[in-house]
Amino acid sequence: MSINKYKVTSGKNFKLENYETVPGGSPVFDKTNRAEVLIRNRDEIRALQSRLYADGKAALLVLFQGMDGGGKDSAIRNVIGVMPQGVMVHSFKQPSTEELAHDYLWRAVKVLPERGMIAIFNRSYYEDVLVVKVHELYKNLNILERCKDEKTIERRCNQIKNFENYLWENGILTVKIFMHLSLDEQRKRFLKRIEREDKNWKFSGTDMKERGHWPKYQAAFEYAIASTSTEKNPWWIVPADRKPYTHAVVSQIILEKLKEIDPHYPSVSEQQLKVLADSKDILLKQAE
Amino acid sequence: MSINKYKVTSGKNFKLENYETVPGGSPVFDKTNRAEVLIRNRDEIRALQSRLYADGKAALLVLFQGMDGGGKDSAIRNVIGVMPQGVMVHSFKQPSTEELAHDYLWRAVKVLPERGMIAIFNRSYYEDVLVVKVHELYKNLNILERCKDEKTIERRCNQIKNFENYLWENGILTVKIFMHLSLDEQRKRFLKRIEREDKNWKFSGTDMKERGHWPKYQAAFEYAIASTSTEKNPWWIVPADRKPYTHAVVSQIILEKLKEIDPHYPSVSEQQLKVLADSKDILLKQAE
Repeated sequence: MSINKYKVTSGKNFKLENYETVPGGSPVFDKTNRAEVLIRNRDEIRALQSRLYADGKAALLVLFQGMDGGGKDSAIRNVIGVMPQGVMVHSFKQPSTEELAHDYLWRAVKVLPERGMIAIFNRSYYEDVLVVKVHELYKNLNILERCKDEKTIERRCNQIKNFENYLWENGILTVKIFMHLSLDEQRKRFLKRIEREDKNWKFSGTDMKERGHWPKYQAAFEYAIASTSTEKNPWWIVPADRKPYTHAVVSQIILEKLKEIDPHYPSVSEQQLKVLADSKDILLKQAE
Repeated sequence: MSINKYKVTSGKNFKLENYETVPGGSPVFDKTNRAEVLIRNRDEIRALQSRLYADGKAALLVLFQGMDGGGKDSAIRNVIGVMPQGVMVHSFKQPSTEELAHDYLWRAVKVLPERGMIAIFNRSYYEDVLVVKVHELYKNLNILERCKDEKTIERRCNQIKNFENYLWENGILTVKIFMHLSLDEQRKRFLKRIEREDKNWKFSGTDMKERGHWPKYQAAFEYAIASTSTEKNPWWIVPADRKPYTHAVVSQIILEKLKEIDPHYPSVSEQQLKVLADSKDILLKQAE
């Protein structure tokens, strides 16, 4: 089995319910080798990231979306690990007053990766068509009336599709990961957060309130994913109920994207080779 | 005559040579009242800018493009004058290494105006389809090969059109002004810069070199303007050979755009009126 069964390249007939939240009948990775795959992939990702950085010809933007408890933090921690030079993580929280006074993509564009870098977005500009849709927050904006009518979310999804196409055309490649969680697994994870003292900080009353809007959120995800899935910038619907499996799949997705970019250490010219050789001579002599 | 004869809302059959660089046969403003118009418009712009700021529902982005000597600085100085709160000017010089490592719109997006603000761009992201086209600078970018092929300028013009449409849909309105200068008027202005000691700093050897590329630049402007002129985001081809006329026209364009936005001071509710009345009572009593 290949991870491609989780890939969405077109919104046509896209239904979230057709995607599994657990490894399912024919898993990509066996139960026995998930941890092993993760470790191996992590090493390979690290090596390719180093080459991407040296090459500097493309940037990678990996974004995670999903319900609370979907395991976004833990996927980032487990797949990427300690951030080496050239990798940045940005968490998208509630927008500030300054951010709200700008166009909604502004705060994301400011932190776009340079070529050579990997940026990880923990949530992203998709929040502006998810939570903003569920609670109709766009209606609260102080903005021209025509910019907050009932077509706002539709327009935004189209703008995001254009935006990601612009990124692709300018060497910034996106990997869009949806952590596909079941309602019951969220229940269990919330209970764990409440029962374990060291997890309490991760739980708030609003989490329960948002859980109450589950069907609305699923519909918002479905619409956003269907509207912005393309060949160049596909979505990945990753089963999120079993963390070891999730991490193996996420690491595989990122690894394959890096392999596709195929970065190389810059080649060294004849002239540079001579500089290296001469410098070596001098340095060796200085020891005498 | 209306200023609309300088407006380009579609690229169809657009030719720069069909537009005048001098006031021409039927000028919008008579020779006698150009200074007067400018002064009156400036006052009105100031009043509307103050309302735009208080209202905060839309932003205005005014960008100036044109050859060296086209009078961009002087138009900004004369039409806008001393910048009040709520107006920012950004000059686009040669991009830095950090800027070159990002997508080319990045440095412009960072300084986009909040709603309520007016941003003036002295040159802009259009440089990336003008000087970059004339000297094929995109070929020097360290970027994936497919991102710097011979279609790069065409793609960028299309990206810019989409970008400006996104801005419009999010309450950021653009006014795009091309300072339409003749080759001979540039010659005269360059001579003045060389002869007047206090203008010497504005002249450099590269200005002469760029002047040698005049036809290429005109072609680049023509292509960029034709590709990005729309009903919502038109270009204005302003005659630039006679400064008093230029300033009157530019002030008229900006004024009419502000009138179209029609900003209002936020209305005060019954409750707020009561707060105002109560506060007045208290303040008056405190004098006793």
